[in-house]
Amino acid sequence: MNQLEQSFSVPFTYTVSFTEHLFASDNTLFRDWLTQSARRSGTQLTRKLLFVIDSGVLAAHPTLPANIQTYFADVPGLRVVDEPMVVPGGELAKNSPELVDQLIDAVDRYGIDRHSYIAAIGGGAVLDLVGYAAAIAHRGVRHIRIPTTVLSQNDSGVGVKNGVNWGGKKNFVGTFAPPVAVFNDAAFLGTLDDRDWRSGISEAIKVALIKDRPFFEWLDTNADALANRDAEAMSYLVYRCAQLHMQHIAGGDPFEMGSARPLDFGHWAAHKLEYLTDFSVRHGEAVAIGIALDTVYSQLAGRITATDADRVLSVLQRLGFDLFHPALAENGGENLRRGLTEFQEHLGGELTITLLDALGQGVEVHEMDTALIQQAIEKLENTLMHNAH
Amino acid sequence: MNQLEQSFSVPFTYTVSFTEHLFASDNTLFRDWLTQSARRSGTQLTRKLLFVIDSGVLAAHPTLPANIQTYFADVPGLRVVDEPMVVPGGELAKNSPELVDQLIDAVDRYGIDRHSYIAAIGGGAVLDLVGYAAAIAHRGVRHIRIPTTVLSQNDSGVGVKNGVNWGGKKNFVGTFAPPVAVFNDAAFLGTLDDRDWRSGISEAIKVALIKDRPFFEWLDTNADALANRDAEAMSYLVYRCAQLHMQHIAGGDPFEMGSARPLDFGHWAAHKLEYLTDFSVRHGEAVAIGIALDTVYSQLAGRITATDADRVLSVLQRLGFDLFHPALAENGGENLRRGLTEFQEHLGGELTITLLDALGQGVEVHEMDTALIQQAIEKLENTLMHNAH
Repeated sequence: MNQLEQSFSVPFTYTVSFTEHLFASDNTLFRDWLTQSARRSGTQLTRKLLFVIDSGVLAAHPTLPANIQTYFADVPGLRVVDEPMVVPGGELAKNSPELVDQLIDAVDRYGIDRHSYIAAIGGGAVLDLVGYAAAIAHRGVRHIRIPTTVLSQNDSGVGVKNGVNWGGKKNFVGTFAPPVAVFNDAAFLGTLDDRDWRSGISEAIKVALIKDRPFFEWLDTNADALANRDAEAMSYLVYRCAQLHMQHIAGGDPFEMGSARPLDFGHWAAHKLEYLTDFSVRHGEAVAIGIALDTVYSQLAGRITATDADRVLSVLQRLGFDLFHPALAENGGENLRRGLTEFQEHLGGELTITLLDALGQGVEVHEMDTALIQQAIEKLENTLMHNAH
Repeated sequence: MNQLEQSFSVPFTYTVSFTEHLFASDNTLFRDWLTQSARRSGTQLTRKLLFVIDSGVLAAHPTLPANIQTYFADVPGLRVVDEPMVVPGGELAKNSPELVDQLIDAVDRYGIDRHSYIAAIGGGAVLDLVGYAAAIAHRGVRHIRIPTTVLSQNDSGVGVKNGVNWGGKKNFVGTFAPPVAVFNDAAFLGTLDDRDWRSGISEAIKVALIKDRPFFEWLDTNADALANRDAEAMSYLVYRCAQLHMQHIAGGDPFEMGSARPLDFGHWAAHKLEYLTDFSVRHGEAVAIGIALDTVYSQLAGRITATDADRVLSVLQRLGFDLFHPALAENGGENLRRGLTEFQEHLGGELTITLLDALGQGVEVHEMDTALIQQAIEKLENTLMHNAH
């Protein structure tokens, strides 16, 4: 009578749908999902649905609130809350504790219960913010994600994390809380500016390089089409990248209880670079540079051939990514290297970095050589100078 | 290519240990657990351990911080953070967003990562507060619970919920986040005042009535011993009640994604009574009155016999619980009845109330009869007047 062992598993399921013009009156996808969701939970009660919209998305799609009201006007058992909330897009959204409070206040004011929904329409930062508020209000109300950027449609939006910044620390506060549904609407990608269109592609290159050589071959073949904003190529990229991320989450350690973080290939340098540049370099752009750095490092460490490394750099360049930023070399590379320690502290436990053993095959290592990092930085800096000639 | 289904289960395990004098130098339980935990996660790194102590516990056990430092002084690979944090005990702890901020700040300041630990020593409110901060910092650092009251040792402390109050609403913000370990130290119960000793017993009566007749028989037999603060009887009560709660969590819907809440027998009225009395009635005292009300209601509704109902009331009274509070009858019972709606809103979905079909057998119903509630209130009020004679 001195010990009880508790052990259980909590099942999570959600659907990621790929569509175009989600709120067009003849697109029944979202309405059908809500009807099925109500049937599954066996309730006859009216459920509420609160929309939260990224201000940037609203600016590009000013009729969105009206479209939403029209779209849901005649769905039985559902009430869309009067006006959508609008929150600032981009990293700003995650810096403001007041926005979390406003969202929780909305849950209270509109009577959103654990069987009602909060749907967020926006880029990754807005999804992270709204997902966090939804996860903690009432210990979790049902959260629907409608990602509007390449990055959020193919990566963050289909995953299980949320979070906000705290005291200047990125994602210091957050939870693991899967959404109940994700709707990827390709039409939102058409209104992105070129930087945002391009940014999200780096996560596809990342996941291809560590998990799926055929997808990397496809990216190589389609790099020019993607750079020229070919919608069909982008649709496949988003689908395949989302699929690889989802398979990784389901097959591994969804709530990251261990130390490994294989999907963070290229990310230790990327996180640091975002900070060093005060976020003037966007996440996807920083990831492209981080991939370039860890690819060259993998070559210098004798893990992949120079041909393979150059091929990765070439794909990144054809997509329009810079491979270097002066902040990498600041302070003799010391500013960047501090990112390794911070990355370890963030994950907890032992330092774990993913490198490449081949194109399509990641490998985890537990230390990085300072001299090789410095050589990789210099090689990337030279690439830049060659380009300038 | 238009839909991906995501599906995975997240496993959770933790141990609830029953001991006495957890920090006595010859009690190796906690040290052994930490060593095994480090071995399981395969890390050689130093893990940190931050203690957060309920001010009420510290007042009753002023040498606790020194005992803790001595106890952990020579554990390899572990560093106990210099000074424990002290937070106010009781419901106050959950009303202050500043305390959440202070805890998250401590996680940052002391470098508590996802492989380090925050251990909370205190009553249910402190465990709820610290568990919440631990769950959101770094998306969850490892949380150890050391409950010090009957209520937290046999019920809330061995479960998976945390939370704080928000805008005057109880537990409006929180998460489901299992601890990594729970240590129930019987020695803490010895210093409780009589009200706190008694309060937690009502949750044992609750779970016995809805799930386990033999345990109810045991409570009936041991009511006088428990009222007289028999430590051995209390040890068994805490163990069996914790076990029944844990079995319920593991066997059901741990993160409460559905509507049912069978463990909330007697709780709709209890929650409302706590509010109506501005928390001068403690949770366990309110639960005892809520049990009495729903037991009498079950009898009036023809579900259990008058003999069985009277037996429940008698056990409650022998333990020293009041069966009635004037707030129940306020405003013709209307104030209380509003608690039904609020209970439904809190759970979301359909109203679901647990009644009794027999001693040891709960049953879920979806409506309650206003006239029968009123009769039950009056019957309890009469019981009180008979006692006064």
